[in-house]
Amino acid sequence: MPGGELHDVFDGIEAQVPEGLAEHLRTAALIDHHVHGTFSEDIDRSTFEFSINEGSNDPVPPWMTNFDSPLGLSIRRWCAPLLGLPARADAEDYWKRRCEFGADELATTMVRAAGVTHWIVDTGFKGDQITTHQRLAELAAGHSSEIVRLERVAEDLLDGGTSPEDYPAAMRAALASAAADPTVVGTKTIVAYRTGFDIDWTRPADADVVDRARALAARPGSARIDDPVLISFGVHEAAAHGLPIQVHVGFGDRDLDLHRCDPLLLLPLLRAMPPVPVLLLHCYPFHRQAGYLAQAFDHVNFDVGLSINYLGTRSSGLVAEALEVAPFAKQLYSSDAFGPPELHVLGSVLWRRAMGVVLGDWIRSGDCAEADAIRIVDMIGAANAQRVYGI
Amino acid sequence: MPGGELHDVFDGIEAQVPEGLAEHLRTAALIDHHVHGTFSEDIDRSTFEFSINEGSNDPVPPWMTNFDSPLGLSIRRWCAPLLGLPARADAEDYWKRRCEFGADELATTMVRAAGVTHWIVDTGFKGDQITTHQRLAELAAGHSSEIVRLERVAEDLLDGGTSPEDYPAAMRAALASAAADPTVVGTKTIVAYRTGFDIDWTRPADADVVDRARALAARPGSARIDDPVLISFGVHEAAAHGLPIQVHVGFGDRDLDLHRCDPLLLLPLLRAMPPVPVLLLHCYPFHRQAGYLAQAFDHVNFDVGLSINYLGTRSSGLVAEALEVAPFAKQLYSSDAFGPPELHVLGSVLWRRAMGVVLGDWIRSGDCAEADAIRIVDMIGAANAQRVYGI
Amino acid sequence: MPGGELHDVFDGIEAQVPEGLAEHLRTAALIDHHVHGTFSEDIDRSTFEFSINEGSNDPVPPWMTNFDSPLGLSIRRWCAPLLGLPARADAEDYWKRRCEFGADELATTMVRAAGVTHWIVDTGFKGDQITTHQRLAELAAGHSSEIVRLERVAEDLLDGGTSPEDYPAAMRAALASAAADPTVVGTKTIVAYRTGFDIDWTRPADADVVDRARALAARPGSARIDDPVLISFGVHEAAAHGLPIQVHVGFGDRDLDLHRCDPLLLLPLLRAMPPVPVLLLHCYPFHRQAGYLAQAFDHVNFDVGLSINYLGTRSSGLVAEALEVAPFAKQLYSSDAFGPPELHVLGSVLWRRAMGVVLGDWIRSGDCAEADAIRIVDMIGAANAQRVYGI
Repeated sequence: MPGGELHDVFDGIEAQVPEGLAEHLRTAALIDHHVHGTFSEDIDRSTFEFSINEGSNDPVPPWMTNFDSPLGLSIRRWCAPLLGLPARADAEDYWKRRCEFGADELATTMVRAAGVTHWIVDTGFKGDQITTHQRLAELAAGHSSEIVRLERVAEDLLDGGTSPEDYPAAMRAALASAAADPTVVGTKTIVAYRTGFDIDWTRPADADVVDRARALAARPGSARIDDPVLISFGVHEAAAHGLPIQVHVGFGDRDLDLHRCDPLLLLPLLRAMPPVPVLLLHCYPFHRQAGYLAQAFDHVNFDVGLSINYLGTRSSGLVAEALEVAPFAKQLYSSDAFGPPELHVLGSVLWRRAMGVVLGDWIRSGDCAEADAIRIVDMIGAANAQRVYGI
Repeated sequence: MPGGELHDVFDGIEAQVPEGLAEHLRTAALIDHHVHGTFSEDIDRSTFEFSINEGSNDPVPPWMTNFDSPLGLSIRRWCAPLLGLPARADAEDYWKRRCEFGADELATTMVRAAGVTHWIVDTGFKGDQITTHQRLAELAAGHSSEIVRLERVAEDLLDGGTSPEDYPAAMRAALASAAADPTVVGTKTIVAYRTGFDIDWTRPADADVVDRARALAARPGSARIDDPVLISFGVHEAAAHGLPIQVHVGFGDRDLDLHRCDPLLLLPLLRAMPPVPVLLLHCYPFHRQAGYLAQAFDHVNFDVGLSINYLGTRSSGLVAEALEVAPFAKQLYSSDAFGPPELHVLGSVLWRRAMGVVLGDWIRSGDCAEADAIRIVDMIGAANAQRVYGI
Repeated sequence: MPGGELHDVFDGIEAQVPEGLAEHLRTAALIDHHVHGTFSEDIDRSTFEFSINEGSNDPVPPWMTNFDSPLGLSIRRWCAPLLGLPARADAEDYWKRRCEFGADELATTMVRAAGVTHWIVDTGFKGDQITTHQRLAELAAGHSSEIVRLERVAEDLLDGGTSPEDYPAAMRAALASAAADPTVVGTKTIVAYRTGFDIDWTRPADADVVDRARALAARPGSARIDDPVLISFGVHEAAAHGLPIQVHVGFGDRDLDLHRCDPLLLLPLLRAMPPVPVLLLHCYPFHRQAGYLAQAFDHVNFDVGLSINYLGTRSSGLVAEALEVAPFAKQLYSSDAFGPPELHVLGSVLWRRAMGVVLGDWIRSGDCAEADAIRIVDMIGAANAQRVYGI
């Protein structure tokens, strides 16, 4: 199936982005420091609609389509040409054309256009539906590393027969093994989805952990780590093993209590923990709070991934707000793409475009030199991730 | 008294709004889905000043005037020409000229300039000072529907002699009657002003409702529904009767605890209730949170009415932020005007202008087609309200 | 050491700011209503880096420099020419050149370029490292007044031997004396750093104050007012003496719990206190909430000082958001500069520039007249401070 080409990411706004910066942003090699695989099988329209709405857990109602959203507009604008259609093709035309591509062909076409050379992949969620990190790297002709989910590691141990008494040692052994694995560059916690951030972040004693594991084991069904002590234990142990810790913050599906995922509620943890890198992910609508924390703590970093995709053309405003108080050494690029490979390429296109708009404005108004802007792009696009994850 | 004409809503920013979109926005017929009447009598300066400050409950102090605010500037800019004065006439000239008009003449001049064909009117507040919904429709040469306030319905029942024991059934009968009345298209709760959103949203048992009604009846004076169980009962019963529910969210006068009106605190209700349409009103400064909820729940919709008027020229930024994550099918237009008819026309002028600025930018940068922008205008301006309220 | 000249504050954005407004903003005499002294001695690089990061309490790590931040870019852009360097000089060149100046010479060069005629100085913090308010006025060739910190006054009394029993009367005497001192124009509370705003704001009885003072006196070491009753006592007494009260709100170092410094949490105090002027300082990222309170309460005013410096070129967006709902009579200018005199001049430069951008846009789009914009500048830049502090 013949695909097409990505349009110039500064199409329509050429006058806003000074040429040297534009040229650099068009080709800069990115590290996507938080991403998932692409769908490994063909999907139907209903799955696609579901996959371009972050918040909902329902099928899209008959009286609307998620193409009628900022993300939907961006898919039509940027991904249609990749499938050989005109930019801003109708939703129906887009969907029809998309169905002519197989899952792998689609993934290859899209992810290669992202200009990402290294994908740091969170492998802890719905792994059966999406490609492995190795396969993503293959499709993208790039490199990959792995992020292990702390709650998933814990659940696998308990479901695998580890006794409550053995659990603390087994968790430590698993993290030591992760720390020794050159493929694994960090961990992630989804405490946002399990308890919210307003829990007691004191490092728990092993005896308390065993008690909680015992209570969990007494519940029917497979293990689900939703006990604050067990979550806190995982985070503190990851830190003790020197592993970077990604934290889902803010914007996510409606299972979480968004107001309990304000990153400021992590202050007790951030103050008390060893200074391993903490990566606040997504953060919308608390991205200003995240930037504040990244300024206040040497070990705290953040991104506005996921939100960039969902805000579509409005992501320029978000990227501008993310460049308010944090030092440039403390912000990273990510797409948080999961499933449709449109998300893998859009994250990159929209970020490059937004950085061009925002930094272009800074240059044109004389507030920074073009060389400064290019350096900021390189820090956020790759260098900070290299430092944080040691890659 | 000869009035004047509304200036072109894109005056001064013609180059920012592509002509097809501009032409459409100039004439698109709007549904104002949340509005109140206009003052039925002439008012004095002090009442006018008070009426153009949403937050305060005091007379304006002698050392200032509310004309010196974003809303004041917008009144001088857009309403002065409607009174036959030059745009940006002085505050004193504006006031002097305004006094030459009678209340009806003023209302006719202003509300007809709004380009609103259907007014959905909240009739539950200070009904003696403002026009009825029928009279507003007459002044505007348009149509109207009614929104009944749940707390007002409840208070009227109790003040009218309904016994606590009969109250649950009486409330159900009143809501059944509202649901059957073709004039009534929905309900509204002002829980924001009574308890804040952080209450127990479990659907209460009738016995509990009777107990609380009894406690209320034992208090001297007329009934004031400020008991969380009674409020929750009203909301759940409205939902059970299939009635759309408007919720005052965020920006309002200082009687409310603004931080307890963050719409995220409604999550327990939104998750548990039957999926009748919920309309989050105003929402500033929590409009990003409201947009998130509108994405996450099929039955949740929102607007940024009221705030648009108060932000004046800055409403373009607000409208832009309101177009961040919610699908376009989930946002509605409203003015929330109450009292001075300036607010009825300004809501419309500022919204049209802001949509022109924001969507015009999207078109000029290639991020959407002009036809898409026009469709978005029609969805938010009228079609979504038609779907939600069945009009 | 020959310095240089401040570049035109509208350099690079001349076309955005109508000439009459630009000319006025270039020369308008400001009152900096919340500021501290400049460093009285030469400082090393590490102290400088530390002093241009508000949130952190650590030395800057070796892998980064705070020059790589919005504030750092603004220092290079605006302060380099004041030292005779080209705009946007390299960080290393800037530092090298800066070291050739003595502390006084540096201070004189910088603070005189701010165009501030009156400095209202908070003298309650690290007074040994920075100039007194009189010395700042001398260096700046301007005037100064003093703000006394309530917690500092209280601690000085207790450390000076005042008994718990005598403490209420002694505090009242100290405040009466402050109120009678023509140099002192107001007070400040740092409740943000001691308890957060979510405390009981009921005016405490003297007996309770004595009890708490007794408990405090029983603790070893010098007094630290972190008891909510003692803090509330100080605030209520300041109000009873008719003294304006500045409140640190939002953005500050990581010792505070930022989410507990949301100004909305002050509602119980604002509703109950006598209406002496309250000045909400800094406010980021809660500046919209602060603007709301300034609209809702006649006695509440606010600024976005401190944040303007830290946001650098992005401060235009912040200033725009600060001009959303509050009447123009309720906002003030401040820099909150402390230490490096770069902060004293930058606060002024960035505010003038941001006001030019925002109000220039309002004028160009016809939303206000140039004379209105100039009046808004004068209100926020000086007149409101004159009214509030009686100077």
